[in-house]
Amino acid sequence: MALEIPEVVIDRLPIYTRALALLQRQGRNVVNSQELGGRLGVTPAQIRKDLSYFGRFGKQGRGYNVKRLLEELHQILGITREWSMVLVGVGQLGRAILGYDGFAPQGFRIVAAFDVDPDIVGDMVNGLEVKSVAQLQDEMPDLDAQIAIVAVPAANAQEVIDALVECGVKAILNYAPIAAHAPPDVRIRDIDPVLGLQSMTFYIKEGGTTS
Amino acid sequence: MALEIPEVVIDRLPIYTRALALLQRQGRNVVNSQELGGRLGVTPAQIRKDLSYFGRFGKQGRGYNVKRLLEELHQILGITREWSMVLVGVGQLGRAILGYDGFAPQGFRIVAAFDVDPDIVGDMVNGLEVKSVAQLQDEMPDLDAQIAIVAVPAANAQEVIDALVECGVKAILNYAPIAAHAPPDVRIRDIDPVLGLQSMTFYIKEGGTTS
Repeated sequence: MALEIPEVVIDRLPIYTRALALLQRQGRNVVNSQELGGRLGVTPAQIRKDLSYFGRFGKQGRGYNVKRLLEELHQILGITREWSMVLVGVGQLGRAILGYDGFAPQGFRIVAAFDVDPDIVGDMVNGLEVKSVAQLQDEMPDLDAQIAIVAVPAANAQEVIDALVECGVKAILNYAPIAAHAPPDVRIRDIDPVLGLQSMTFYIKEGGTTS
Repeated sequence: MALEIPEVVIDRLPIYTRALALLQRQGRNVVNSQELGGRLGVTPAQIRKDLSYFGRFGKQGRGYNVKRLLEELHQILGITREWSMVLVGVGQLGRAILGYDGFAPQGFRIVAAFDVDPDIVGDMVNGLEVKSVAQLQDEMPDLDAQIAIVAVPAANAQEVIDALVECGVKAILNYAPIAAHAPPDVRIRDIDPVLGLQSMTFYIKEGGTTS
């Protein structure tokens, strides 16, 4: 079944999860697709269709049990466990990523940081000693990290991604502005703010349309 | 016509644009949907379908003229012009954003930076003097900025977004991990690395499937 689920549906599940977690913190027990959609700018029908890929949640007219739906989504997304990550690139952006406090509460932990610059290697940043990229191959087996964050300049990014794939990394969060490639069994998500900007200018440009 | 174009199609156009710009820098004149798709992990049929929303590009069996397709995509996305942006939040992340050199080459320029912290207001960061968020309403009319970047903590993000909308901002790049909302005529793109991670763990979790 899972094989047929469109990637765009999977991409929306974390957004639903985040909204449900907020509702739970607000003490809410039940929410319907109308309200959930309203909070997210998604139609209620879209939410019901997305969730239908994974079975039946909620009863017609009674809405979803927030706690139960949240648990189910955690199961589906594989976020009931902790995930270890490595960071490559400890420049200004890498340091902001190491200081980002949004990962840990969601079960994502950066367990090692690597850089190529000898002036940076050896620095202590947020409790981690920066290691040399040359040590990647030696260090990775002990780290049990299937996820990597790439925060190096564009010119070095593909070679870093290749090295990470070589070390068995299966998911890469890529901050470098390149069209990175990896084997089919490795997932890449690009964090490129320009892509987000360019898909918004379509709507706000002169003569553009709002949808 | 534009009204019927799915948002996911618009979201892919900047990715095509980026790949075509790379091909152009490599001196390529022509590319077919097969090769372009191969570089991006997208099927050739998907590329042809996406582009078909905007008219006919390329000739059957002869591929696309790289330069012409790139120019057309720039027109479609509204990125033939320069866009001014304001940044709100000049903490560690905000400073990394101000130092990010990927915006300017794509025509996006941060023209003002705001923070709420009196210790930060007045700082010079990348050639900009940080202003107080309290000055937002006064400063915005002169800035001619329709785009804002929000890099404040989650707890303050919605209120900052509301203030920006009040000032006439039409597109917001939001780095805060919240399900932000805005009126229908304002676009929001979230840069939340956790969402990207959570949509990858679906594929790499034990018992998960690769698509």
